[in-house]
Amino acid sequence: MTTTEDRRRQILAAAVRVFAAQGYEAARVGDVAKEAGVAYGLVYHYFGSKDAVLEAVFREQWGRLLSAVALAEETGETAPEQLELVVKIVLRAWRDDPNLVRLLVREITRSPHIQDELDEIGQAFASLERIVARGQDEGTLRADVDARMAAFMLYGALEEVLTGWVLGQLPDDADAVAAAEREVIGTLVGGLRRRAD
Amino acid sequence: MTTTEDRRRQILAAAVRVFAAQGYEAARVGDVAKEAGVAYGLVYHYFGSKDAVLEAVFREQWGRLLSAVALAEETGETAPEQLELVVKIVLRAWRDDPNLVRLLVREITRSPHIQDELDEIGQAFASLERIVARGQDEGTLRADVDARMAAFMLYGALEEVLTGWVLGQLPDDADAVAAAEREVIGTLVGGLRRRAD
Repeated sequence: MTTTEDRRRQILAAAVRVFAAQGYEAARVGDVAKEAGVAYGLVYHYFGSKDAVLEAVFREQWGRLLSAVALAEETGETAPEQLELVVKIVLRAWRDDPNLVRLLVREITRSPHIQDELDEIGQAFASLERIVARGQDEGTLRADVDARMAAFMLYGALEEVLTGWVLGQLPDDADAVAAAEREVIGTLVGGLRRRAD
Repeated sequence: MTTTEDRRRQILAAAVRVFAAQGYEAARVGDVAKEAGVAYGLVYHYFGSKDAVLEAVFREQWGRLLSAVALAEETGETAPEQLELVVKIVLRAWRDDPNLVRLLVREITRSPHIQDELDEIGQAFASLERIVARGQDEGTLRADVDARMAAFMLYGALEEVLTGWVLGQLPDDADAVAAAEREVIGTLVGGLRRRAD
């Protein structure tokens, strides 16, 4: 890895901490530079603006999580198992990187404009939709729910649970987080499963 | 009804149209006054600020919708039937008052801060939670899902479907809206129902 990549990554990691702690609006580029232990000018050199730092955080950091969701598609498991994996990947982000989730919920999911522009979110929806459609073809998921609608319901439920944790409206100790995983899987993936009745 | 109440209502209805069309940030109090056909000063006289107009819109207009949700609790039907009613009330708002939903999704649900402050949203969550808990007691809903978590999943799914309509990401012709109602009920209320298996 080159020094340039190291520096870039170091600045983005600092930006996640600073934006999560202070809020994006209130945070200054100088705060990010200080947290990263680099010169103020270097942040501008790499990114050009505070907006560009946020966009890079989103694309690179959150992009990793969304890639993991896309990879769930490649596992060769049944569609319900792949949906369960997606639920686990998304909800475990809160335990693994709470600052990133905090930033996402507070600054990014709250702007429909940004959501619209970012390919990564569109790709995650498309992955979910494809998994559901394949499950309907293979007969493991109910066929009377539009695949795109199913993707929206699942995404919305996951986002709201993460929001509940970020805003302290839902308990988020280890037991509660594990229970949430089982509950979302039971209700939503369960609700999408094809049943005999 | 007094003239004061008429005027107030007229200004709020105009505000919903103006904020939905221009976005809250871009809209000026003068635009609201013009749309309402009243003098600029009168809007300030009644509300004091643009923020206060938005808050009044939320409390009075959206409050009506949320009250309808709370009323679902009083119907004496089983919990799954009450949840179905809530889904219908919320999703039909898009057909009945698209500007209000547009405003809600774009300006209000996107600010966790406002969500936190507004009692009305907290009351809607509490209604949902009580309905689920009662369904678990009466044996119509599965007992292995926390009632509060169920309320979050349902709210998140509904909000995301409304967002999909506002942003034009989901089809919203009459057939699609009717199908969405059946699909959310089938998946989410279905997923919460107690089953023999």
